[in-house]
Amino acid sequence: MVNIPLDTIHRPTLLLNEAVCRENIRLMKEKADKLGLKFRPHFKTHQSKLIGAWFREAGVKAITVSSVSMARYFNDDSWDDITIAFPLNIRESDDIIALSGKARLNILLTMAAPLEVFCKQLGSHGNEIGVFIKIDTGYNRTGLRPDDIGEIEKIINTCRKSASLTFKGFLTHTGHTYNARGRNEIEMISAEAFRLLGSLRKGFDSGPDPLMLSMGDTPACSLLDKFEGIDEIRPGNFVFYDVMQTVIGSCGPERIAVCLACPVVSKNASRKEVVIYGGAVHLSKESVFYKGKTIFGLVTSLTNSGWSEPYENCYLSSASQEHGVVKVSDELYNTIHTGDLLGVLPVHSCLTAQCMGNYLINGTIADFHM
Amino acid sequence: MVNIPLDTIHRPTLLLNEAVCRENIRLMKEKADKLGLKFRPHFKTHQSKLIGAWFREAGVKAITVSSVSMARYFNDDSWDDITIAFPLNIRESDDIIALSGKARLNILLTMAAPLEVFCKQLGSHGNEIGVFIKIDTGYNRTGLRPDDIGEIEKIINTCRKSASLTFKGFLTHTGHTYNARGRNEIEMISAEAFRLLGSLRKGFDSGPDPLMLSMGDTPACSLLDKFEGIDEIRPGNFVFYDVMQTVIGSCGPERIAVCLACPVVSKNASRKEVVIYGGAVHLSKESVFYKGKTIFGLVTSLTNSGWSEPYENCYLSSASQEHGVVKVSDELYNTIHTGDLLGVLPVHSCLTAQCMGNYLINGTIADFHM
Repeated sequence: MVNIPLDTIHRPTLLLNEAVCRENIRLMKEKADKLGLKFRPHFKTHQSKLIGAWFREAGVKAITVSSVSMARYFNDDSWDDITIAFPLNIRESDDIIALSGKARLNILLTMAAPLEVFCKQLGSHGNEIGVFIKIDTGYNRTGLRPDDIGEIEKIINTCRKSASLTFKGFLTHTGHTYNARGRNEIEMISAEAFRLLGSLRKGFDSGPDPLMLSMGDTPACSLLDKFEGIDEIRPGNFVFYDVMQTVIGSCGPERIAVCLACPVVSKNASRKEVVIYGGAVHLSKESVFYKGKTIFGLVTSLTNSGWSEPYENCYLSSASQEHGVVKVSDELYNTIHTGDLLGVLPVHSCLTAQCMGNYLINGTIADFHM
Repeated sequence: MVNIPLDTIHRPTLLLNEAVCRENIRLMKEKADKLGLKFRPHFKTHQSKLIGAWFREAGVKAITVSSVSMARYFNDDSWDDITIAFPLNIRESDDIIALSGKARLNILLTMAAPLEVFCKQLGSHGNEIGVFIKIDTGYNRTGLRPDDIGEIEKIINTCRKSASLTFKGFLTHTGHTYNARGRNEIEMISAEAFRLLGSLRKGFDSGPDPLMLSMGDTPACSLLDKFEGIDEIRPGNFVFYDVMQTVIGSCGPERIAVCLACPVVSKNASRKEVVIYGGAVHLSKESVFYKGKTIFGLVTSLTNSGWSEPYENCYLSSASQEHGVVKVSDELYNTIHTGDLLGVLPVHSCLTAQCMGNYLINGTIADFHM
């Protein structure tokens, strides 16, 4: 990275390393191409038209979002092939219908009832809307059980009866990879998802177009080299990565593309702690168990050209509303002074980006305020 | 409350009950007046000029904030007696000096070094700035140990040498009351703070004006009837309260003034779970241990005129980025449908308000975007 104007940073500021970020995009696109997978990255991590443009420059044409308002935000910037990977919210039907006139839209169902309501709301509206059924392959958050054949059939039949709805296939989010550590566990979780989705396709594939299978959490997409039967991947976090992903084993810390620059405001010699301006309102309250401790971020040094590898034995041990407390080693303690800046690599970059609402990229602030 | 236009709520929306909120303000102001305490409420919880105006109507003239930008935001709305209760950040000295021309400002020191730098930055600048020394009375986050007499003397001497800086007194935040449960524990924590601050005043009170002692977390200010030797209280959270405060024992759930309205988007019969549109980006990731479980919020029903008491045996069991998972009782499960709205009482209202950036008050959205 070049050009971090350290002298102008007075408050917590989210630095974005454009080169690392673009490389994360390039590598994932290259992998999808090589494996013959459709790449539909999730844009909820960055929520930024500017970073969206980097995806477009890398050849990406289809995206995933997590809300109707996010779909509209990116559609305003000419993205016109969008999956809203969140259970259909029938309180937003009017917005979804309006958007379907401007973009090829896919919606997500986890039960039949809301789709039946949506159908009535649709009326004789003519724009095609794709429908994916979300399958719970073990994460136990949302989605139909793969053996809930009755409910799956209801959704498919509702699509068949509608002039506008096209059943596209099955989608899963194997979010339980976030509790996995290392390639083997992630391979096992993913293999089970491939198997379950594969047999659903076998059971329901009867239309003219083959059904699609879509999956794609960042750990699996970063670590696997085979996606048995899968047509499409939808990772999101990989665009920035974060400390959580290094703990899971998805990447090394050198692939983390965002870092919060935080002024040092106090020191405590007896506890070997440094207090920074940078807390839960900047990083979120997300923590991870790391080398035997619950931490809220790893700590780096900053120069005008970038940030260092994280310090050993140094971590954000708590995050209050605006404060962060950094535990440091004895040697490091004496080299840090109030008025210095420290960098904090976030535990969960999606939430940190959401908290901050903008990035400092090559010396310029880019807002995204969706 | 009157007038929640439920039909117009399509997305997670933070409802604010003006009557409860104004009553929370009134009760705390009344208590401060009765006990002869200066009332300097912390405005970081609401961050809103509109709610600030309700404090003004209740007779409040002095406020506490947690950042320089928050001080500027409220000063723009004519608040002119402001304590920035965050360790002096010398990267913001220019902003602080500029603001001191427009408001009576107090700053906070937790060590001498930044004040010495600030003094040089001040130069011959003429506006008076008050200085409080923050004392760690057991919370162990920031502040000087009460026995660190050398550092305290350094700060006081730096003030004496400066034409602009006036040493005002000692301030503490007994944030460890948040780990307390019930009045007795909070009384013990507070009594220790009174004792430590009291003896510091005795040791250092030599100027023409008596030194001030300032404290004030919401649990102590809600529960105590005596503030031995204390001159000023600075509670913030009480303006809304939240589930955390009910767990601590500061209030009953009927005093919680904010509630997140969330569309129901999915149900899972086998797990008796309801999925709502409402997650970490709306509520924050804050959790609390409640009746043997880690929860992210309590759940209420909503009508056009307000929200109910929280349901028994019903709670937000997880908060992903946009999803929340609600555990419900068997009976309740069958009465909830996709497209319904549920209310969620937040665990930590300060963070929820920060995440949302606006309130729905009597049918009208009030932004605060600081």
